[in-house]
Amino acid sequence: MPPLRIALLQSSGHPGETARNLKALDEAAGRAAAGGAGLLIAPELFLTGYAIGDGVRRLAEPADGPSGRAVARIAATHGLAVLYGYPERAGDTGDTGGTGDAGGRGGDGGAIFNSARLVGPDGAELANYRKTHLFGDFERAWFTPGDTPVVQATLGGVRLSIMICYDVEFPENVRAHALAGTDLLLVPTAQMHPFQFVAEALVPVRAFESQLYIAYVNRTGPEGDFDFVGLSCLAGPDGTVKARAGRGEELAFGEVDPGLLAASRTANPYLADRRPELYTPLT
Amino acid sequence: MPPLRIALLQSSGHPGETARNLKALDEAAGRAAAGGAGLLIAPELFLTGYAIGDGVRRLAEPADGPSGRAVARIAATHGLAVLYGYPERAGDTGDTGGTGDAGGRGGDGGAIFNSARLVGPDGAELANYRKTHLFGDFERAWFTPGDTPVVQATLGGVRLSIMICYDVEFPENVRAHALAGTDLLLVPTAQMHPFQFVAEALVPVRAFESQLYIAYVNRTGPEGDFDFVGLSCLAGPDGTVKARAGRGEELAFGEVDPGLLAASRTANPYLADRRPELYTPLT
Repeated sequence: MPPLRIALLQSSGHPGETARNLKALDEAAGRAAAGGAGLLIAPELFLTGYAIGDGVRRLAEPADGPSGRAVARIAATHGLAVLYGYPERAGDTGDTGGTGDAGGRGGDGGAIFNSARLVGPDGAELANYRKTHLFGDFERAWFTPGDTPVVQATLGGVRLSIMICYDVEFPENVRAHALAGTDLLLVPTAQMHPFQFVAEALVPVRAFESQLYIAYVNRTGPEGDFDFVGLSCLAGPDGTVKARAGRGEELAFGEVDPGLLAASRTANPYLADRRPELYTPLT
Repeated sequence: MPPLRIALLQSSGHPGETARNLKALDEAAGRAAAGGAGLLIAPELFLTGYAIGDGVRRLAEPADGPSGRAVARIAATHGLAVLYGYPERAGDTGDTGGTGDAGGRGGDGGAIFNSARLVGPDGAELANYRKTHLFGDFERAWFTPGDTPVVQATLGGVRLSIMICYDVEFPENVRAHALAGTDLLLVPTAQMHPFQFVAEALVPVRAFESQLYIAYVNRTGPEGDFDFVGLSCLAGPDGTVKARAGRGEELAFGEVDPGLLAASRTANPYLADRRPELYTPLT
C-alpha cells in the first residue's frame, strides 16, 4: 500500500470571518493538492477562529450547513480530503455523540459542540467528531462536551480517527483510538503559550506509546487573549517526527507509511503487552 | 514541607557478583548521604546484574534474604532510604502480588520475580514491588509477572511508589499510580539501545501527563548481549528534567519539591479533567 501524503495547514485564518477562512482553505487545498497530498488538515475552530467569545452563538452551524457544504465543494474541486475544526450547532437529527445537555450552553437552537469534520475527496462527509475534553473557561462556557471518544473513517487504505487539542493530552484517549485500530490520528488544535511542551514532546510520545501516526495541526500567533504556538507536526510510531512546522503560518507536508507502521508495531508490541486486568482503577 | 533530596545511582555494578555489588551500593550510599540525599535509587536487578541468564536460579533470594539484610544494614549505617532491584525468590509466606504461576519458571524453590525493594533509613522494609510487565525473552523465560500494579510507601512526607523499566512505558500503569496519590514514582530500569527515546522523551512526558515526579535510574554500558544507555533522570511534573545523567557511571542528585508539585497540579489539572466513563475500552 502506498504512503498517504498529507498537508498540515498551520494558520489562524481570520477570526470571526468565516467567508475569508473558507477562501483561505480553498487556497490551501489547491497548494496541498499541487503538492501531492490526499488529505488537508486545518486547526481547531478554523472556520470561525478561536477567540470569538459569544460570537460562537452566531457563527455555529450544523455539520452540513452552508459552510460545511462550501468545504465539501472545496474538497471535490481539488480532489482531496479535508479535515476542519468548527463550532457545530446540533440539529434535530443525525447528531450523535453529544450529551444533549443544552441547558445554559449555546443559547438558542440547541447545544453547540467544538467539532472537527472530515470530508472526502468527492465532497461526502466521512466523519464528524465532537471534542470530549473541553479546555479552559471559554470552551466550558460555550460548548457541550461530546460523548463519543472514537470516530473513525478510512482513506486510501489508512484508518483515520479524530480528536481535538486537549483530548490528546490524555493518554487514555489515544489508547482507545489505538485499540480501535487507528493508523493516523488527526488532531486539529489551538495550542497556546505556555504549553508548547505538548507540541514538542507529548505528541511524539503519544504516537510512540500507542503505535500510530499523529497529525497535530495548530493555530499560530496572537488572537485575543491567546498566543498560539504553531509547532504543528506529524509524529511517527517509531518516535521520530516526520514533519515539523515553525512558529509562523505554514503548509507542511508529511507521509503516512503503512510499511513503517507495520515494522514499528512489530518492534514495539505495546498493544499486545498490555495487561488490561491491571488497569481497572482508570475507569 | 522541605524538598526530598534523592540520589540516582547509574551503574551496572558487577554482573553475577552480588557481594561486590553490595560493596558498590555501600560506597554509593556513603556518597549519597554525604551529598544530602535521603533516598538512594539503584537500577533494575542491581544486586545480581541483568545479563545473568540461568544464573537467576542461583542468585535469586527472598526479599529478606542475606542480601536484603545486607542492604538494610547499608541503609541504617548511612541513615538514608535505599531502593534496589533484585531477583526475588518467592517464599512460603509474606509474599503478595504474584500470580503464583511457578510452573516452568524459576526452577526449584518456587516462582522468581523481577523485584525492587525499598528499605527505610532505619533498615526496615518499606515496600517490595514485583515487575508486572516483563520485557523480552530473558525476562519471560525466568520471571513470573507480578499482579499488584501499585505498591506505595511514605518517606519524608512524600508518597512514593515503585515500578520497573518496561512498566513505565505503559501510560495506564503510571496513571494508576497517580490516581493512588503518588508524588514520586521510583523506576529502576535496564534500558537498552535502541530504546533511548524512552529515557529521553517518554519519561518526562509520563511525569507531566500524570503530574508526579519520576526517578528513572538506569544501568549503563555493555553487558552480555545488551548495551544499556544510561541517561537516568529525575523528571518533574512541570515537564522539565530536574537531573539528567550522561552515558557513563554517575551518581546524580535531584530534589523532589512538594511546593512545585502542588503548583504544577493546579496549572495542569489532568487528573480532575479525566472522563473515566469514556475509557472503558482500556480495561
